Amino acid sequence: MNIQEFFGIELPVIQAPMAGVQASALAIAVSNAGGMGSLPCAMLTIESLRAELQAITAQTQRPYNVNFFCHTPSAPDAAREAKWRAVLAPYYAEFGIDPASVQAGSGRAPFSSEHAELLATFRPPVVSFHFGLPAPALVQRVKSWGAKVIASATTVAEARWLEANGADAIIAQGLEAGGHRGLFLSDDLTTQVGTLALLPQVLRAVRVPVIAAGGIADAQGVKAALALGAAGVQVGTSYLLCPEATTTALHRAALQSDRAEHTALTNLITGRPARGMYNRLMRELGALSDAPPAFPLATSALMPLKAAAEKLGRDDFPTLWAGQNASGCREIPAAELTRQLAST
Amino acid sequence: MNIQEFFGIELPVIQAPMAGVQASALAIAVSNAGGMGSLPCAMLTIESLRAELQAITAQTQRPYNVNFFCHTPSAPDAAREAKWRAVLAPYYAEFGIDPASVQAGSGRAPFSSEHAELLATFRPPVVSFHFGLPAPALVQRVKSWGAKVIASATTVAEARWLEANGADAIIAQGLEAGGHRGLFLSDDLTTQVGTLALLPQVLRAVRVPVIAAGGIADAQGVKAALALGAAGVQVGTSYLLCPEATTTALHRAALQSDRAEHTALTNLITGRPARGMYNRLMRELGALSDAPPAFPLATSALMPLKAAAEKLGRDDFPTLWAGQNASGCREIPAAELTRQLAST
Repeated sequence: MNIQEFFGIELPVIQAPMAGVQASALAIAVSNAGGMGSLPCAMLTIESLRAELQAITAQTQRPYNVNFFCHTPSAPDAAREAKWRAVLAPYYAEFGIDPASVQAGSGRAPFSSEHAELLATFRPPVVSFHFGLPAPALVQRVKSWGAKVIASATTVAEARWLEANGADAIIAQGLEAGGHRGLFLSDDLTTQVGTLALLPQVLRAVRVPVIAAGGIADAQGVKAALALGAAGVQVGTSYLLCPEATTTALHRAALQSDRAEHTALTNLITGRPARGMYNRLMRELGALSDAPPAFPLATSALMPLKAAAEKLGRDDFPTLWAGQNASGCREIPAAELTRQLAST
Repeated sequence: MNIQEFFGIELPVIQAPMAGVQASALAIAVSNAGGMGSLPCAMLTIESLRAELQAITAQTQRPYNVNFFCHTPSAPDAAREAKWRAVLAPYYAEFGIDPASVQAGSGRAPFSSEHAELLATFRPPVVSFHFGLPAPALVQRVKSWGAKVIASATTVAEARWLEANGADAIIAQGLEAGGHRGLFLSDDLTTQVGTLALLPQVLRAVRVPVIAAGGIADAQGVKAALALGAAGVQVGTSYLLCPEATTTALHRAALQSDRAEHTALTNLITGRPARGMYNRLMRELGALSDAPPAFPLATSALMPLKAAAEKLGRDDFPTLWAGQNASGCREIPAAELTRQLAST
């Protein structure tokens, strides 16, 4: 079954949830255009989540998706935090930041019963998860109002696990994808597979609809994924230049330059591997490093560096999220981009 | 222009050259079926190359491809070789191998004027290169008998370089591909991109025909690559179970098991990153390691371990080459597989 029938939408395109570069405006535009818009909720407080859900439900009658992380929070580890700050100390000095002023904290909370309770009042038609699925009771709670539960698989084993644990559809997230890798059964990055290889193998392994993600940037990419048997696609990077995205000017400029050709998986930003443009921090510390604390605790120590660099217009530290194929980025309204992606 | 017109073949399928698992028989079968067969020449002596070319020209009138590496040979480095053998010492002990009996040497010679001279007597219609292109005079020599010169690009920058340096067509080798990564302008593996991301970007960057490689395993994969605008495809892994391939029994069994789902890029086998099934050696030494000497000098110290393990039916050390998508492997004649790949 294709995702148009499955979700009750017109076009085979899901806009990927992208925390940090979009909020409800992008999701609303995509849903109203006939695709499925997604709201990234991992970095929202309960109050902001409520406000965003109010905005969405006020501005579209079409199906939309809310996306959550469902990691097990890591316990703060003073020794690792101290080690991480020691690694960052020369950068604090360079930007004139007082290390004592740097806050600790996580910044990304996993899906919880508090979220579920709030969602129940809005009854979003689709809820997607990254890093596996929440506890079975929470999955059931979400399904209780008829929501479809979808989640990312980065390997065949993860796809089988998600289907066995209640996912109604699976996003096959190829290695090309920007942002966080969804891997959750292993932390071995050699298990991570390109979309063209992952998709056919996941399609053979599960019966639920499979959505292709990673490296799909334009209508030809969508056609290719559908030719491989995908029920639909999830596209992120191509939306980053749309006016409805909150992508910074620095980030927008980089996406339109040669720099976008070189991304890397890095754990420096949050502690888990995520794909963004290759930058000074990755070059100097190694994109994959033992230094950062466990996810999501790496983030807070970087925040003042990110802010200071951004203020100076420097992209040494801000995370310029991007997948491996930024060739589909267009400065056009998200509705138009959605229709272009689905054009045959 | 599609590769059927470009090379004068019937089907849009090139069988990837795969040193160590095939010789002329596979190439002949594929060419006679209407695809383009490839002879991997990197590990052949001049005498064996002559014999293989005689076999091919005696058994097919159709176009075929001969493939060479064109690396700059590394100077032997006694200190690195000693370090490498020290790393392998426990394995020599485990398999009862006398370290003093282990030969040094390279095993893989780059394309040379001696090769070109021999080729000139056979005038192969297509010559493909991995790791860039040979010196301009050698490229011109090959073109002098009307041969088309093709080469692998793993990045947009490499594609532009190859076009500027005389490649008549470019193979966009996505990260999913088995065997050696063709990268040659950088040794930074973060530059390596999945096929679905690489292909559209290479297509925008060059005017010559672009052949998609990496993760393409069956007719749907071929259709997807053509939908993206590829002039044709190069397929390797799917041919490994064909009777015409020289794939070992051990390797054939692994390809049909779950093991084939997990491959990794490793420099342990030759000194350059190449994709094969994840094995004990990679697990214990790290798939990417500082220990092995420069390409291709890592190989010889491993040969006795490979032989000893193979004799015992153990896959700890033999290189079980595979791309990230082994789902298209079939125990059927190569001609039939070629036609299936091209079926619409």
